[in-house]
Amino acid sequence: MYGIKILKIEKIKKIAKELENDKKELVIILVNPQLGHNIGSVARVMANFSLFSLRIIKPRSGWLNSEAYSSAAGASAILDNAGIFDDFKSAVSDLDFLYATTARRRDIIKEVLSPRSATKEIRGEINLGKKIGILFGGEKSGLSNDQLAYADKIITSPVNPNFASLNLAQAVNIFSYEYYVTGNFESLGRVTQSDKGRMEGLSNDKTKKANKEEYIHFIEFVEGALIETGFFDIPEKQKLMLNNIRSMFQRQNLTQKDIKILFGIFKHILNS
Amino acid sequence: MYGIKILKIEKIKKIAKELENDKKELVIILVNPQLGHNIGSVARVMANFSLFSLRIIKPRSGWLNSEAYSSAAGASAILDNAGIFDDFKSAVSDLDFLYATTARRRDIIKEVLSPRSATKEIRGEINLGKKIGILFGGEKSGLSNDQLAYADKIITSPVNPNFASLNLAQAVNIFSYEYYVTGNFESLGRVTQSDKGRMEGLSNDKTKKANKEEYIHFIEFVEGALIETGFFDIPEKQKLMLNNIRSMFQRQNLTQKDIKILFGIFKHILNS
Repeated sequence: MYGIKILKIEKIKKIAKELENDKKELVIILVNPQLGHNIGSVARVMANFSLFSLRIIKPRSGWLNSEAYSSAAGASAILDNAGIFDDFKSAVSDLDFLYATTARRRDIIKEVLSPRSATKEIRGEINLGKKIGILFGGEKSGLSNDQLAYADKIITSPVNPNFASLNLAQAVNIFSYEYYVTGNFESLGRVTQSDKGRMEGLSNDKTKKANKEEYIHFIEFVEGALIETGFFDIPEKQKLMLNNIRSMFQRQNLTQKDIKILFGIFKHILNS
Repeated sequence: MYGIKILKIEKIKKIAKELENDKKELVIILVNPQLGHNIGSVARVMANFSLFSLRIIKPRSGWLNSEAYSSAAGASAILDNAGIFDDFKSAVSDLDFLYATTARRRDIIKEVLSPRSATKEIRGEINLGKKIGILFGGEKSGLSNDQLAYADKIITSPVNPNFASLNLAQAVNIFSYEYYVTGNFESLGRVTQSDKGRMEGLSNDKTKKANKEEYIHFIEFVEGALIETGFFDIPEKQKLMLNNIRSMFQRQNLTQKDIKILFGIFKHILNS
């Protein structure tokens, strides 16, 4: 338990440090959120995807409760540093562009973008030094038409048309994930002193895919052993069966380590 | 309140119907999940992205509580129809391919894919009639190396390398969203009898972008009014200023409705 607590404090400090260094160009704005649990979850997904600037307009009183901190899971610095606003206009007035998220049709004329298209565009604007806000409506009824009217564009996700209402934190999650993917991330997953993250492909950097020479050496060993032990009882089928065996091993995408393991198994069986 | 309850029951029935029609080829598998709230949230995001087949291996006892149903928000049919398993092998034995999700390095040699690459591949396999399972580890410690060894491939998300642990429902959310995006969805957002969903572009189908004739008609009206009322006090600057005004309105991406509104405003001011 003690070890876990130390880890948690280290994690909180790390996120606080990242928050301090963040340029605050991309701001997540929650409008009238109701549940501490959801607001904490928003902080967690923001940290998951390296966003740190959170503003909250008229949250329900008492929102910053133990549930909020618990669901933030180490990203509490984002909650503690969130800007809290009483009115909509003062929360957005310093921004260059404002995007609003909604799943519903609005009788308002604005450009609609998917999260993927929007985040590509936003990444471009951020690179030009613009300050961007993304509006997310509260759990009860989303954004009002009055609030939407202030937005430059609308973001609407592809979603099951019969079950289109995303939980608040899930909506922020999809946006933040898509935005992160538009950046030049260097690896997948966690990075620590002992874990340098992965790229797509074989997951272990300690071993390599076997090359053709290693394959051939192994397959010829197996073939020789099978011939010697009388595996091919019908001689006219030997050539076909050998080719099937070669193909089977070739398909396996074996690593150098795999070949070693298989050598070990075959040699053990042959000697026993 | 009554209206809301009716709506909820209709929603529950709709999801139950979709679940019934689902071919169950893509199965979300939770391994040792702990919190009813998270499991309910998983059901909700599955319904959000049209996935309906859920299996749960050794959940903590008492997981199917009021929090689970509350966070499922209408997707309760997915919880009620979830397959509950006591052991890992019987939960996966009918599947053709098994993918495991993890953010951590494993000392195990498997191909690693991002959610985007994995879901494209999975969509292809589903189209060939394969049955696919996606493993998600529990809140405490994720998947064990023993469980990972049974998977064909690993899915690891791009994520803040210093804060890489996604909440269980958020991990399912990103996977399900990416899988949904690989399909041929017809529109963004909600679809109801009165709301037919949107594609990217201007959000209101009741009005169209103004064409050049409408633009020119409007701009010439404004120009005439400005000349008549003596707006251009320095004659040699009139041409430049007129071009600036034309460009400004041209940039606005105005709709036919916008032009009507602007006409109304200008005519009102000129007459008052």
